[in-house]
Amino acid sequence: MLDVNAVRADFPILARQVNGKPLVYLDSGASAQKPQVVIDAVTRAYAEEYSNVHRGLHYLSNLATDKYEAVRGTLQRFLNAAHEDEIIYTTGTTEGINLVAYGWAMPRFEPGDEIVLSIMEHHANIVPWHFLRERQGAVIRWVDTAADGSLDPQAVIDAIGPRTKLVAITHMSNVLGTVVDVRAICAGAQAKGVPVLVDGSQAAVHMPVDMQAIGCDFYAVTGHKLYGPSASGAIYIRRDRQAQMRPFMGGGDMIREVTRESVIYNDPPHKFEAGTPGIVQQIGLGVAIDYMTGLGMQTIAAHEADLRDYATSRLAGLNWLNVQGTAPGKGAIFSFTLEGAAHAHDISTVLDKKGIAVRAGQHCAAPLMDHLGLSATCRASFALYNTREDVDKLIEALELCHDLFA
Amino acid sequence: MLDVNAVRADFPILARQVNGKPLVYLDSGASAQKPQVVIDAVTRAYAEEYSNVHRGLHYLSNLATDKYEAVRGTLQRFLNAAHEDEIIYTTGTTEGINLVAYGWAMPRFEPGDEIVLSIMEHHANIVPWHFLRERQGAVIRWVDTAADGSLDPQAVIDAIGPRTKLVAITHMSNVLGTVVDVRAICAGAQAKGVPVLVDGSQAAVHMPVDMQAIGCDFYAVTGHKLYGPSASGAIYIRRDRQAQMRPFMGGGDMIREVTRESVIYNDPPHKFEAGTPGIVQQIGLGVAIDYMTGLGMQTIAAHEADLRDYATSRLAGLNWLNVQGTAPGKGAIFSFTLEGAAHAHDISTVLDKKGIAVRAGQHCAAPLMDHLGLSATCRASFALYNTREDVDKLIEALELCHDLFA
Repeated sequence: MLDVNAVRADFPILARQVNGKPLVYLDSGASAQKPQVVIDAVTRAYAEEYSNVHRGLHYLSNLATDKYEAVRGTLQRFLNAAHEDEIIYTTGTTEGINLVAYGWAMPRFEPGDEIVLSIMEHHANIVPWHFLRERQGAVIRWVDTAADGSLDPQAVIDAIGPRTKLVAITHMSNVLGTVVDVRAICAGAQAKGVPVLVDGSQAAVHMPVDMQAIGCDFYAVTGHKLYGPSASGAIYIRRDRQAQMRPFMGGGDMIREVTRESVIYNDPPHKFEAGTPGIVQQIGLGVAIDYMTGLGMQTIAAHEADLRDYATSRLAGLNWLNVQGTAPGKGAIFSFTLEGAAHAHDISTVLDKKGIAVRAGQHCAAPLMDHLGLSATCRASFALYNTREDVDKLIEALELCHDLFA
Repeated sequence: MLDVNAVRADFPILARQVNGKPLVYLDSGASAQKPQVVIDAVTRAYAEEYSNVHRGLHYLSNLATDKYEAVRGTLQRFLNAAHEDEIIYTTGTTEGINLVAYGWAMPRFEPGDEIVLSIMEHHANIVPWHFLRERQGAVIRWVDTAADGSLDPQAVIDAIGPRTKLVAITHMSNVLGTVVDVRAICAGAQAKGVPVLVDGSQAAVHMPVDMQAIGCDFYAVTGHKLYGPSASGAIYIRRDRQAQMRPFMGGGDMIREVTRESVIYNDPPHKFEAGTPGIVQQIGLGVAIDYMTGLGMQTIAAHEADLRDYATSRLAGLNWLNVQGTAPGKGAIFSFTLEGAAHAHDISTVLDKKGIAVRAGQHCAAPLMDHLGLSATCRASFALYNTREDVDKLIEALELCHDLFA
């Protein structure tokens, strides 16, 4: 069982006040806070061990390179990838998916070729495919969610037609908390010879994920949600798909040879990593993942399942509140609206006065909001450092909102 | 005059030892060390003020957004851009140049269209153009340097032909230290109606740079060389060129509206900034630039000119040493080889034993190395925290190398 008080003591920001109230941070779905060990690793990297990587032979350069490259193994174990070179460093999921769009999809999509998306994708897993539509005539096939926010894997598989070149699907909705059976989708897609990209931005934070068990071709994660530094991240790309890809960004480290007339690219993973990378960010991400796995991903998942169940039950008691997404096994993410005229932004402002940080808006998922018939929701997203007391404070503040706006 | 001892006290890493010797860091051309104010700003951002930006309405999100967005004004003033929205945040020069290659050049290069490069470009300003050659049939026109490493601006202007669509040129060579008269090149190119991209990775660190005086269309800088965090950076793109560009990466924040069928992009600069950005990195970069401008860019330039002159004179005393690049007004960057069999890597290893960090290799500038007829050099690159004593230690260690390898 997670010792949540000990965990909370690891996160310095949780001790602060906001608007005169103790911070209740329920916006981890947008970005997670950082434990002291991560902050310390970043500080130490800059203050004692900093240099550029790969390019030097001097002591500090070797030290920084060793620490930076060791994180690849950390990520490989975290994701249970078969090979360390299947881990490509990125600045986050957005860059990871764009890498696949530019490096894998762009050279092979012909006009009329199709990509299958669910309606609950984040813009990071929509806009790169709209680029392919605008620029190359790709066709996007949307698969809707059921009324409870669940996604039938068979509906995704059935959407795969003879022109489908890719399925791109979230593992966990950042709005509804729905966990998608990506394993079933990958099996069905593989049987039809179609690769699957999984957006793991949310899922990898909250549950054990296993590349070999899932059987996906691409799996993107983002460090800033994994309790790591901003602009850290990675994407898993299976070796056979790497072999089909051209490089995305050009620059240092991704080449073996450059002349006036020609260029020979480096081997993966470096082929896909151009220029001076996020050296310190990736070192910090490695520490963040060690922190999570030290607690245990199953332990984290169990703690958050308890929060989910408790919040679900307490929110159900507010009969003037509409929660979006009640799929079985969902994550601890709650998007809601209040009956009556109160706009999501007004609610979040009232909550903020009570020190409670939630997000209001479209959550970078406009097609889903259209599908739900909503212009905006408030979203409370829970993480490993949240408590039942946080839920109670949220409920109390929502009751105040109801009093104010009803 | 720069109080270099006070400056050195600002950089904690300079107090450390390497291989039992005080660190002499002469690898700032690869990446600069960070002052304590930058490290403190990063720590504070994570420990006290962290949240995602642009997406929330709560206190921490507004605070982080304000701090993050304020850096755009800092960069505008640093570069003397006419408008704040001409500053696009990047993770460094590599991403900046790729943004121009994908967003501006890719949609307008036809087979046979030309791009003019100097032979001393960094791979970051070569490989994106090789992509255009490989993928779209672009032709790269190379302009050679003179024997002393200087680059005649008229030779660059003369290389512009009727098919030239872009000139892409470094402002300061990372190998030779040559400072290029980019102002003259921009004037000549503009007269022929051809835009100019300037790679300011090195130059912006060492001298005042002024977008409006230079008259360039694109100017890329990289934060990790500017004493800022790794994976921070920016590119200046003049408004009229922004208007010609399509977005590069797709994701959150760069859109105004997304539906199943369509996407409407955000206004610049956000149109070119997708996904959760390097929030803390950019905040740290702002502090780094304030640190530099607090010292004064002219003061920094004068200090480094003194180091250049002193090092030039002392290195000239070693008649078994060949320094590459002696152009008038060059920066304090020295690439050299030893006569005889000593390989650059062996030299750097000996220097490292004495605590002196230099870089050995091709310096991500392979076409220049071919032009010079060299396979590798050692490079000592100076920064605002270096001293004449650092030069003396370098000379002493080089004499040891000569004794060992001669």
